[in-house]
Amino acid sequence: MASQDLINRLESTIENIPDFPIPGIQFKDISPIFLNPKLYEEVIEDLVAFSKGKIDAVCGIESRGYLFGIAIAVALEVPFILIRKAGKLPPPIISEKYDLEYGSAIIETREGQIKPGQRVLIHDDLLATGGTTEAAAKLVEKQGATVSQFSFLIGLKGLNGDEKLKKFNAEIYHILEY
Amino acid sequence: MASQDLINRLESTIENIPDFPIPGIQFKDISPIFLNPKLYEEVIEDLVAFSKGKIDAVCGIESRGYLFGIAIAVALEVPFILIRKAGKLPPPIISEKYDLEYGSAIIETREGQIKPGQRVLIHDDLLATGGTTEAAAKLVEKQGATVSQFSFLIGLKGLNGDEKLKKFNAEIYHILEY
Repeated sequence: MASQDLINRLESTIENIPDFPIPGIQFKDISPIFLNPKLYEEVIEDLVAFSKGKIDAVCGIESRGYLFGIAIAVALEVPFILIRKAGKLPPPIISEKYDLEYGSAIIETREGQIKPGQRVLIHDDLLATGGTTEAAAKLVEKQGATVSQFSFLIGLKGLNGDEKLKKFNAEIYHILEY
Repeated sequence: MASQDLINRLESTIENIPDFPIPGIQFKDISPIFLNPKLYEEVIEDLVAFSKGKIDAVCGIESRGYLFGIAIAVALEVPFILIRKAGKLPPPIISEKYDLEYGSAIIETREGQIKPGQRVLIHDDLLATGGTTEAAAKLVEKQGATVSQFSFLIGLKGLNGDEKLKKFNAEIYHILEY
């Protein structure tokens, strides 16, 4: 949905850092987007257009998922729910464990903030293998809500993140693809 | 600057959790604010009124400092700079180490995003002992910019955070005090 012009400007703003955090990885640093409030607002407009009228709540994944997620929720006048790393939210919480390349991790949300029956957008800045996003979607379903949409600034081709999220039958959108 | 009415509504929204994360601590959970986009916008209006015309950039401290910080920056049409925990930003970076109750921690920002001569607002959700905030202020000064203001949703009395920040000769504002 984003115009080619917006995509071009984002691509020239995002910085590619080779071999970070480990050799072989091309890190995409999105932080320069936040230096340009007008460009940030264009990103929000595009993400809001994708979700308008289709969701009742936004879940944002810590921490860069907060940067766009909160603005999407405010623009659509729906609740924004924090999905956090383990140990940061006080009880009562709902947790979901997921696998990493080496070991595992846990994400959490406060019980009761996602309401049964809500149509939920899960938002993060980047879709890679989809492990964290899948765990977030399970958190949403555990509370009787429906994952209606996923949105990302960036989707990484070749890591099959979209494939992992297919089972949720939700719309998937990323502005940029690498 | 916030009206007593806004303060009252925030106090009844923020949840107090005793003995989290350790016995004796009264944890203030601000996450219910984000469930109410109208209330969130009132908080932003108040924080924007404090900084309007006085700053050239906003530094937000990961991760809850992003939730209000990005909206302050966008409203004032100034750059938003991410201050992150160690190891998350690619090089070149500027780092600052600070003491915790047990051990130490490091925060980082990407070199060159804060510009010499800028008047900077440092924003976080909560001012406790001020250790992280002080380290963020040192990061700003290391880059030749000036810390003009600090803003927080909450200031915790009795931990002397304000005292630790005095040396920066900046305005300090928290909407709520506990």
